[in-house]
Amino acid sequence: MKIAVLGGDGYCGWATALYLSAKGHAVSIVDNFIRRQWDHELGAQTLTPIRPLAERLRVWRELTGRSIDSYVGDVTDYDFLAAFMKASEPDAVVHFAEQRSAPYSMIDRKHAVATQVNNVVGTLNLLFAIRELRPDCHLVKLGTMGEYGTPNIDIEEGYIEIEHNGRKDTVPFPKQPGSFYHLSKVHDSHNIMFACKIWKLRATDLNQGVVYGTVTDEVSMDEALINRFDYDEVFGTVLNRFCVEAAIGHPLTVYGKGGQIRGFLDIRDTVRCIEIACHNPAAQGECRVYNQFTEQFSVLDIAHLVAAAAKKLGVNTEVEHLPDPRVELEEHYYNAKHSKLIDLGLQPHLLSDSLLDSLMNIALKYRDRIDPELILPQVNWRSPRNERRGQGSAGVARSLTQTR
Amino acid sequence: MKIAVLGGDGYCGWATALYLSAKGHAVSIVDNFIRRQWDHELGAQTLTPIRPLAERLRVWRELTGRSIDSYVGDVTDYDFLAAFMKASEPDAVVHFAEQRSAPYSMIDRKHAVATQVNNVVGTLNLLFAIRELRPDCHLVKLGTMGEYGTPNIDIEEGYIEIEHNGRKDTVPFPKQPGSFYHLSKVHDSHNIMFACKIWKLRATDLNQGVVYGTVTDEVSMDEALINRFDYDEVFGTVLNRFCVEAAIGHPLTVYGKGGQIRGFLDIRDTVRCIEIACHNPAAQGECRVYNQFTEQFSVLDIAHLVAAAAKKLGVNTEVEHLPDPRVELEEHYYNAKHSKLIDLGLQPHLLSDSLLDSLMNIALKYRDRIDPELILPQVNWRSPRNERRGQGSAGVARSLTQTR
Repeated sequence: MKIAVLGGDGYCGWATALYLSAKGHAVSIVDNFIRRQWDHELGAQTLTPIRPLAERLRVWRELTGRSIDSYVGDVTDYDFLAAFMKASEPDAVVHFAEQRSAPYSMIDRKHAVATQVNNVVGTLNLLFAIRELRPDCHLVKLGTMGEYGTPNIDIEEGYIEIEHNGRKDTVPFPKQPGSFYHLSKVHDSHNIMFACKIWKLRATDLNQGVVYGTVTDEVSMDEALINRFDYDEVFGTVLNRFCVEAAIGHPLTVYGKGGQIRGFLDIRDTVRCIEIACHNPAAQGECRVYNQFTEQFSVLDIAHLVAAAAKKLGVNTEVEHLPDPRVELEEHYYNAKHSKLIDLGLQPHLLSDSLLDSLMNIALKYRDRIDPELILPQVNWRSPRNERRGQGSAGVARSLTQTR
Repeated sequence: MKIAVLGGDGYCGWATALYLSAKGHAVSIVDNFIRRQWDHELGAQTLTPIRPLAERLRVWRELTGRSIDSYVGDVTDYDFLAAFMKASEPDAVVHFAEQRSAPYSMIDRKHAVATQVNNVVGTLNLLFAIRELRPDCHLVKLGTMGEYGTPNIDIEEGYIEIEHNGRKDTVPFPKQPGSFYHLSKVHDSHNIMFACKIWKLRATDLNQGVVYGTVTDEVSMDEALINRFDYDEVFGTVLNRFCVEAAIGHPLTVYGKGGQIRGFLDIRDTVRCIEIACHNPAAQGECRVYNQFTEQFSVLDIAHLVAAAAKKLGVNTEVEHLPDPRVELEEHYYNAKHSKLIDLGLQPHLLSDSLLDSLMNIALKYRDRIDPELILPQVNWRSPRNERRGQGSAGVARSLTQTR
């Protein structure tokens, strides 16, 4: 298949692009490198030393003989996106090209607006481009489990049958997202559902859980192919961040009670889920929703798992409960369905001791690159303006705030 | 009370501003006149000859001795909005300042994106401005009944209790909006709900039905205070449009079967509902949703009512069923609750023969201003690019399309 990976230079996008290329698909990457720019803005960097995209792609070609085309541009620029669609004629478009950090969207008004405009306009553009130029192309869109929030009922995959006052209907599952970022994904989901209805497009909305890990068969072929590993408080996901904290003897920073339960998955399952979605396209006019995660854990569960893995490597860690900078339930019911991708053939990589060992080893290997200043939360949901610490590398962010 | 009316030069906004001023409130209007600009773009104009805002306000002051402050600017410009909030210190902000036409949002990609960015960014800015500058101020936001779509179950006011797999929760009512405009209001609703939760803001989201009529006690005091009366296919609401069609002997243009049922209300009830909301502010942290309409009718019901009113004035009309340019159910179950505003004191002006007579008389009075070219639908939901008819006054719209 001809598959376009929008945001193919990012964490999930890069692993996905290589995996699909290895499987023999004709892969194109679209990226404008704004994810790398955000690192500069925040004074942060991935733990792992990622290479520029051009180098990554050259090494991949040398190692495997497989070419991945790259298109540098912004999906919010319709002329660029349309030109790309005409040039690449994809059978499926995998859309990772969004601002994906909740804390980033909560820094202040400008970041909230930038997140929602970037994500909503990019997705609207993509829907129009598919409709106008490639109407049979399958949209595989990354959503998030965070769209649902934490209702006191079971979470279904996208839709729920409701019986009310003696009548029944199947309707979109109600959304209660927890940040301006998560809200942007909810906006996308509604826009996509509507476009499928009026234009008979095909779409799969993948509500992904928290992704952990960095290694896939492909990225581990060569140091030049190494994937991102974010641990900073803005872009770092919780399991990766805890491993880094353990590696430098920093307490594991649990927000509040740590009873926040979320769906999690290994990045090796992310790439496989995308392939499954591409191989099984939605029908014309169908907006299918899959919940893309494999296990549920509480944040405190994760902290204890990381502490145990660290201990095996001779590293002692403590768990520290910080006041929760987010506005969220710290203890709640959570039971989210996630059987549809399994039914289509996903064989989960469950969180194992060996995976935790491998993550801890990566954190230890690159320990010298860790900036402890980046770990503690600086973005408070309750404040409309978060001045980021101005020390050293975060100076850019501070001056941006000051000139506003 | 000090009440700000954002979009106070528009159809609902103007009637609301005068009504609240007459009741003794200190009213400020914020408007950037983009609604008048859209008329120029579309080659359309209100049936009634509205005056510039400055003249309207001068005449109002001369007639009543009451001043309404006006602030010219765009709510998507945060610096302007923040300066306004500091200068006017409102107790309540009534937010009408959005692009409100479904067909306008469906013209093409640019109009879809412009609608969503304008509405979402304006509302985000307002939420931040309230949080930062006036945290106790009550946001009264205009939503639309179109956010709900037409589910096969009763529509509640904003929230629904769901029992699912033996557990219960009260969650936001699922949204199935029918245009990129209606989607923008859904996006707003989610953003507002979240802001109330994290920042303890007070908000009332008024999901308004289709408004008809043009006369309130205030706007009828003087010809210079006359309100808009839109009849064109883009901004005209159905009842007003049918009256204009009857007045020039044009068939009443029913889209499809005409079994589309919607909630309707008289503009005199719109202004009263706003006052009720302002007098009964939401609690801190509460995002309250009221369904703001008084009666349900099908489009065909409305056509028959207008035909009967026209006949009494000696005007014979026909009903013409056009292919539905929208993607919507042409026959469906519809039962939307709307008791909360009644409970707070709303006494509805139900659709009456006398109101229909008065509307027909307005349509006949201004018959010479009617452009029949503006009546037939030119925006097809199924097409991603609608070339508007280029004849005469619509030339601006055509050239915009051609240079894209």
